[in-house]
Amino acid sequence: MTQIDPRASGAAPSDLSRADARTARLAIRAGEWRSHTSGLAPAHVQGNVVILPQALASDFLRFCQRNPKPCPLLAVSEPGDPSLPALGGDIDIRSDVPRYRVWRDGALIDEPTDIAALWRDDLVTFVLGCSFSFEHALIDAGIELRHVREGKNVAMYRTNIATAPAGPFHGPLVVSMRPMKAADAIRAVQITARVPAVHGAPVHLGDPALIGIHDIARPDFGDPVAVEPGELPVFWACGVTPQAAVMEARPPLCITHAPGYMLITDRLNRDLPFA
Amino acid sequence: MTQIDPRASGAAPSDLSRADARTARLAIRAGEWRSHTSGLAPAHVQGNVVILPQALASDFLRFCQRNPKPCPLLAVSEPGDPSLPALGGDIDIRSDVPRYRVWRDGALIDEPTDIAALWRDDLVTFVLGCSFSFEHALIDAGIELRHVREGKNVAMYRTNIATAPAGPFHGPLVVSMRPMKAADAIRAVQITARVPAVHGAPVHLGDPALIGIHDIARPDFGDPVAVEPGELPVFWACGVTPQAAVMEARPPLCITHAPGYMLITDRLNRDLPFA
Repeated sequence: MTQIDPRASGAAPSDLSRADARTARLAIRAGEWRSHTSGLAPAHVQGNVVILPQALASDFLRFCQRNPKPCPLLAVSEPGDPSLPALGGDIDIRSDVPRYRVWRDGALIDEPTDIAALWRDDLVTFVLGCSFSFEHALIDAGIELRHVREGKNVAMYRTNIATAPAGPFHGPLVVSMRPMKAADAIRAVQITARVPAVHGAPVHLGDPALIGIHDIARPDFGDPVAVEPGELPVFWACGVTPQAAVMEARPPLCITHAPGYMLITDRLNRDLPFA
Repeated sequence: MTQIDPRASGAAPSDLSRADARTARLAIRAGEWRSHTSGLAPAHVQGNVVILPQALASDFLRFCQRNPKPCPLLAVSEPGDPSLPALGGDIDIRSDVPRYRVWRDGALIDEPTDIAALWRDDLVTFVLGCSFSFEHALIDAGIELRHVREGKNVAMYRTNIATAPAGPFHGPLVVSMRPMKAADAIRAVQITARVPAVHGAPVHLGDPALIGIHDIARPDFGDPVAVEPGELPVFWACGVTPQAAVMEARPPLCITHAPGYMLITDRLNRDLPFA
């Protein structure tokens, strides 16, 4: 993990974790923070990012509208405009994500920390809700999340559940999995159902094979996390779903965040859903 | 099943199922309806009934307060008063339940259809919320309940979860079980969490052994209901819990409804929780 340079920011990394969203974003913009954003500005909404040429924007908007659990839209930019005033007064999407992924014709070709050189007047930015927000609510409710305790990325799986297609965008629902005791799973359903803007209630719990996951120990994305005896795996729709749909659609250009390296917004988790 | 006599009521049994609460209650009071009340006046709240001498009322009230999921109190009568104005203008608890159970020193001694001869000036009536109300909400949401489809009583089990004791009242939490696919279980958690006055969200789902149920095919009360492949058993706190606590407390006299033979109130399920 690349840690922030205390000399550059005047703050130790532990201070940054308590900093407000703008401080964290400025450190990312300045290249001082190049790691994943889990735990940064924890009261603030973080977002999945998908940037597409305007010619595909309408299809992608319909894809999000038809698949609101994996693709909860928080904001859409004006074409060519790198700002996102609804999410933060000073956001510049060309520099404010710590690591990007650049896709051409569906193939990952680069993971830069800045996309100013790639910016075009026809690019549209989509920001989608992220499970960091509901994880914050679960932890506040006293529900332990094993991957957080173990410092891992959450385990993510392709399922046999198809998304509703729109234009060239289609593909499987991708889910994230958190193991829990049944009583915690029941509370987690209630807590996450209240935040549809960040994936909402789980899509499945119990037997993974019923949604086409045949080896829970081998996630398709992220890190494996053990399901202990007496626990159920609980599955939520995941923001990697639109990345999988973009790969299937093979657009000439697409830029996304790298998994776990999110856009930190000025909006607060407690204000979800935004009115 | 004892059916209502159409000559006495002027209505066929199928009409009674659509009748309003008062019509159903009058048929029960007149001895014309002596069967269980599942499906009668379905928009109306039905209640579990516990009648105890005043000397035990305070302990039983505390027992309910400490165990709100199995014992959601809807109303408590004045001592010696057989009316329950909060639940219906004309209710007479001595005649308005189709079948009672009379317990002396913890032993079941009779199942009369009227308790006027047993009434005393020190008896206090407690009415507790009943799962019929949330089943109505689940069915409205399109969730099939197998025991309803099969015309069975719900399956109920003693668990290894202890209730919080109060005075002489103590004993295991009793749960009802409904098998569901995971997606329906997730929706059922959300739907029933909204009605804490009728047991609220489930207390467990998945492996029955984790709450001390070692043979799901052999319920302690009610009828066995199959859990099909691809389904989870989902467990809710059950109104039989206070009956089990009364059996443990062995009061000199206690009168309850017979399981499934409930008090039909004038209040509507849609108005739960009562303000």
